[in-house]
Amino acid sequence: MNEEITQEAATPSVELLPYYRQAKYYETDQMAVVHHSNYIRWFEEARVDYLEKIGLGYDTIEAAGIYSPVLEVHCQYKSAVRFNETVMIKAVLKSFNGIKMKIGYEVLDAATKQVRAIGETDHCFVTTDFRPASLKKNHKDFYDILIKCVGVEVE
Amino acid sequence: MNEEITQEAATPSVELLPYYRQAKYYETDQMAVVHHSNYIRWFEEARVDYLEKIGLGYDTIEAAGIYSPVLEVHCQYKSAVRFNETVMIKAVLKSFNGIKMKIGYEVLDAATKQVRAIGETDHCFVTTDFRPASLKKNHKDFYDILIKCVGVEVE
Amino acid sequence: MNEEITQEAATPSVELLPYYRQAKYYETDQMAVVHHSNYIRWFEEARVDYLEKIGLGYDTIEAAGIYSPVLEVHCQYKSAVRFNETVMIKAVLKSFNGIKMKIGYEVLDAATKQVRAIGETDHCFVTTDFRPASLKKNHKDFYDILIKCVGVEVE
Amino acid sequence: MNEEITQEAATPSVELLPYYRQAKYYETDQMAVVHHSNYIRWFEEARVDYLEKIGLGYDTIEAAGIYSPVLEVHCQYKSAVRFNETVMIKAVLKSFNGIKMKIGYEVLDAATKQVRAIGETDHCFVTTDFRPASLKKNHKDFYDILIKCVGVEVE
Repeated sequence: MNEEITQEAATPSVELLPYYRQAKYYETDQMAVVHHSNYIRWFEEARVDYLEKIGLGYDTIEAAGIYSPVLEVHCQYKSAVRFNETVMIKAVLKSFNGIKMKIGYEVLDAATKQVRAIGETDHCFVTTDFRPASLKKNHKDFYDILIKCVGVEVE
Repeated sequence: MNEEITQEAATPSVELLPYYRQAKYYETDQMAVVHHSNYIRWFEEARVDYLEKIGLGYDTIEAAGIYSPVLEVHCQYKSAVRFNETVMIKAVLKSFNGIKMKIGYEVLDAATKQVRAIGETDHCFVTTDFRPASLKKNHKDFYDILIKCVGVEVE
Repeated sequence: MNEEITQEAATPSVELLPYYRQAKYYETDQMAVVHHSNYIRWFEEARVDYLEKIGLGYDTIEAAGIYSPVLEVHCQYKSAVRFNETVMIKAVLKSFNGIKMKIGYEVLDAATKQVRAIGETDHCFVTTDFRPASLKKNHKDFYDILIKCVGVEVE
Repeated sequence: MNEEITQEAATPSVELLPYYRQAKYYETDQMAVVHHSNYIRWFEEARVDYLEKIGLGYDTIEAAGIYSPVLEVHCQYKSAVRFNETVMIKAVLKSFNGIKMKIGYEVLDAATKQVRAIGETDHCFVTTDFRPASLKKNHKDFYDILIKCVGVEVE
């Protein structure tokens, strides 16, 4: 890591608000709670929102001919979400090494702040024909944003 | 309509078996029945299966640069489907006029033959950039199959 | 219909704002537009929102031991919605006769106001063991709200 | 663990066939591959199928007043699945200690046997009001099947 990257420089200039989401009726299952597969979709919603807030909207990325497919997903379910309850999801870029990024998620009940789930997704960057894309070489602006937001380039 | 198309010629040569589908857990909602939106997806599954059986697999169509988007969907729910129950879905090409086609669906409990739902979808044909596609002019083989299967070209 | 119900009384006292919804990535399909089945889910979201605004939140209804299953759904697709676009959905109670209600939907692009889809759903009211429920007899408060909002009891 | 449980006794008497599943159109996204969230649903389908084959159908379990919620899910995506491709999913009970069970999944292309994804889910057992359920005490038949299938009680 470059020693000159200061705490200040590594901090995103925009304050990142969590993503709010109300549980839909069609997301429930016959246990009368939100089906566990939907959290993976909520992670995506929160990720899209987060990336847009730091200047990397999915449509911006895809307009540049870049996909960021999910390589791995992990979710721990702590307590159930019921229909109509609102959760707040805190997404954060946990690491980025130029080739892969890891995003973390914390799903909390918006009212009680009780933890509903925590998780992570790992991503790479590919061109629209699924070949590896080098952000550092071909999309330096994207690269710089990610480096800045994670504050450190993982070696 | 060409008068020489006889009843016999209009009958598809393959016997069309219904499409069978078991209700998944994640398709239930907190009423403990399959959520009504999933029937629209089941219609699609049965349609894909039906079209493939008559020689018009969706991948074949899309390989030819043709999409067949849904213009309209209609579903009447007669009785609930529960987790793990198997339904049989009878799809049929109800009409085709060269520009649009209408497909009908009957969803029955596979064991009891009780009607679960009936419905219809309307479709047109477009190129991959969403411009109208003329099957008669550019995809005569697709056109002929559809005309043969419905038995009559609606004017 | 009681003649004393005036135009004024029949008008809901709250101004009903449309329901806004951003298209999610996971709602797209390989035509790069929102899959048609999701509109049926958006109708539900807009319906839940609408009913809550008039005082009949789904959770309120279900707390009273009442389900309002969908009997019929109809949707006409006018133009495609793409990822990240925001739609506004105007829901309205089109009819209520004490036994069934019909809700209409208009899905517009929030920015351009172009019509994306229009549709309707029909509903009945049942107890949690799926027996017919009489709102007029057992849930007069629900009944009154619905009558007031539609302005007229369809015979 | 009881030392008398032999390798033979620990082997399920039925040969467990993998679960086959064809990718649906509505499961694709605008990258023209199956959306990653659907694998979590496929895991569930394969799990339901596996548990049924060993004598523990979800409906059997739920009929006994037992839910088996997902505590944790993990999936690594190796290569994309496209519309209409068939995958075979091998599910296996990796561990069971009387309180929790871990099920592993391998998703392979049915034709080429190329690995599409691997994953795991962790589950506990609760009563329908979400209190911990002791299979050993109250559902010895379920307990015995799981112990037999995993071959060893993890301490």
